[in-house]
Amino acid sequence: MYKTVVKMLADRGVTLKEIAEVVLEVQRGYYDQLTLEECLEGVEAVVRKREVQNAILTGVALDMLAEQGKLPEPLQSIVAGDDFLFGVDEILALSITNVYGSIGLTNFGYLDKTKPLLIGRLNSKKNGACHTFMDDLVAAIAAAAASRIAHARRPAEVIED
Amino acid sequence: MYKTVVKMLADRGVTLKEIAEVVLEVQRGYYDQLTLEECLEGVEAVVRKREVQNAILTGVALDMLAEQGKLPEPLQSIVAGDDFLFGVDEILALSITNVYGSIGLTNFGYLDKTKPLLIGRLNSKKNGACHTFMDDLVAAIAAAAASRIAHARRPAEVIED
Amino acid sequence: MYKTVVKMLADRGVTLKEIAEVVLEVQRGYYDQLTLEECLEGVEAVVRKREVQNAILTGVALDMLAEQGKLPEPLQSIVAGDDFLFGVDEILALSITNVYGSIGLTNFGYLDKTKPLLIGRLNSKKNGACHTFMDDLVAAIAAAAASRIAHARRPAEVIED
Amino acid sequence: MYKTVVKMLADRGVTLKEIAEVVLEVQRGYYDQLTLEECLEGVEAVVRKREVQNAILTGVALDMLAEQGKLPEPLQSIVAGDDFLFGVDEILALSITNVYGSIGLTNFGYLDKTKPLLIGRLNSKKNGACHTFMDDLVAAIAAAAASRIAHARRPAEVIED
Repeated sequence: MYKTVVKMLADRGVTLKEIAEVVLEVQRGYYDQLTLEECLEGVEAVVRKREVQNAILTGVALDMLAEQGKLPEPLQSIVAGDDFLFGVDEILALSITNVYGSIGLTNFGYLDKTKPLLIGRLNSKKNGACHTFMDDLVAAIAAAAASRIAHARRPAEVIED
Repeated sequence: MYKTVVKMLADRGVTLKEIAEVVLEVQRGYYDQLTLEECLEGVEAVVRKREVQNAILTGVALDMLAEQGKLPEPLQSIVAGDDFLFGVDEILALSITNVYGSIGLTNFGYLDKTKPLLIGRLNSKKNGACHTFMDDLVAAIAAAAASRIAHARRPAEVIED
Repeated sequence: MYKTVVKMLADRGVTLKEIAEVVLEVQRGYYDQLTLEECLEGVEAVVRKREVQNAILTGVALDMLAEQGKLPEPLQSIVAGDDFLFGVDEILALSITNVYGSIGLTNFGYLDKTKPLLIGRLNSKKNGACHTFMDDLVAAIAAAAASRIAHARRPAEVIED
Repeated sequence: MYKTVVKMLADRGVTLKEIAEVVLEVQRGYYDQLTLEECLEGVEAVVRKREVQNAILTGVALDMLAEQGKLPEPLQSIVAGDDFLFGVDEILALSITNVYGSIGLTNFGYLDKTKPLLIGRLNSKKNGACHTFMDDLVAAIAAAAASRIAHARRPAEVIED
C-alpha cells in the first residue's frame, strides 16, 4: 500500500522529497543541524500510517475526478473552483495532522496560510489541474512530520514509531 | 443548497423523517414528551448548516462513484467493500457531529455501533447499493440533532440557531 | 512518565486490568480467541503515548481539584455536577481516541453511552468522588486499545506501534 | 454566563476588543472595508457559544492554578513551563476553532505560529503570569470570528448565528 500511495502522489506531481523540503523550511529555525534526510525520514514515517494513506487516497481521488468533470453537482463546481469555504479538505487534512498529536495543528495552519515551496506551486493551479485536496494533504503531511521530529529531538524521549 | 441536499439524500433512500425517527429512538428515554416533530425540526436545522451540507455532498458522491465502479483503485475496493478500518467515513461524520459541540460524539458512536432503524437498513447493503459513507452521515446528523434538542430543552437557555 | 500515569490512575481507583476488561467486553463478539492479556497489552501501548498521558494528567487533575472544591466558579459547579452539556471531557477523550485513527470514535461513543463494568462503577459517583473526566478517559483508552487490536488482527498488516 | 466569561478574560488581561484587533489584522488583506466593529461583533458571537465558554473556563482555570502552584505534579511543571509538546492547549482550542466549521483551522495555526499583537504579549509571560492556555484560546477565538466573517461576507448567504 505504501508504494501505491507514493506512486499516486508522484503521478500527481508530488514527491516525498519536496514535502521534506517544506518540513525543513518550517523547522529550520528551531533545530540548527536539521538535515533534509531527517525530514525525509519523518515524511516517510507519516506516509506509512494507514489513516494517512486513506486520507491521501480519498483526497487524490476527489481531485482527479474533479479534473475529469466526473463529480456530481454541486460538488463538481465546489471542488473544481477550490471554494475556500468548503472545509472538507481541511477535515481530511486534520486526520493526518493528528497522527503525532495535536501539536501538528499549528504548523498545518501556518503552512496552509503561507503556502511555501511545493504548496505554493500546487496552489497556482495551472494547466487545468485541480489540487483542492492536495495542497492541504501536503501541508498536513509536512506538519505531522515536523511533530515527529519535535518529539524525536526531545532529550531522552523514545521515538514512538 | 438545502433543497439540493435534501433531494440528494432522498435519491439515496434517506428522508429527514426517517433520520428524525432515529433521533426520537435515542432521546426518548431522556425526555418524556419528545415528539417526532421536534426531532424533525432538529434534523432540518442540522442539514441547513453549510459544513454539514458539504460533508453530505462529499460522502454521497463517494458512495455513488463506488457503486458505479468509478473510483481509482485501491479506493474503489475499500469503499465498495466498506472496510471497517477505512476511517474516512468517521472523519467526515465527525465534522457533522461537532456542529453543536462535542457532546454529540457519544450518540454518534452509540448509533454507529447499534445501527437502529434506518441506519440498520442502510447497512444491510442489498441490491448492490453502497452506503459506506451514508450510514455514518445519518448517524452523525441524528447525533447532532440530539445535541441540539439537549441544549434547547435545558431551562432558561437560548437556542443558538 | 508511564509509571507516574499508571500510579495516578491507580490512586483514582482505576487499574489497566480493569480497562482491559472493558476492551474484552466490547471486542469479544468480533474475535473468538481474544484474551485479557492481549487486551491489556493494547491498553498499555495506548497509555505509553505522550498525548494520552497529557490528556490523563489534565483530566485527573480537574477531577481531583473539583473534589477538593478548588476550581474557580462556575467551573467548580459544572465539573462537580458532571453537567452533561459540558463537553470538555469528551474533547479531551477525543485526543486519546484518535491515536489509532478515527475508527476508535464508534467504540468510544458506545462505551460512553452504555457504561459497562468499570465505567459504570466510576459513573455511580459514591462517597463524594468526582469522575467527570475519568469515565470519559477510561472509555477513550479502551476504545483506542480496541482500535489497535483491530489493526493488529488484520492479516498481513504491520502493527504500527 | 457570557458576562462571567468576559469578566474572567478581562481579569486575565484580555479584552474582546484586543481579540478583535487580531481578527482585523489577519482578515484585513481579504476585505477592503472590514472594520474593527465588525470584527468585535464576530468575537462576541463566538464567545456567546456554550462550548466556547466551557473551553475558556477550563483553560483559564488551569492557567490560574498553575500560577498559584496548585496543580498536581507533573502537570504543574508542564503547564507552568508551557512545554510546547503538551498539546492539551491546542486540543481545547480546536473545540473553539471548529464552531464555524473546519476553515478556522488555517487561521488558528497561522496565529498560533506568528503570534501577532495581543497573542505575542500573552506569550511573553512576564511577571510570573502563566498564559499556556490563554494564547491558544485567543488565537482560536480570533480564528473562529474570522470564519464567521468569511461566511457572512459571502454574497447571498444567511448568517448562521
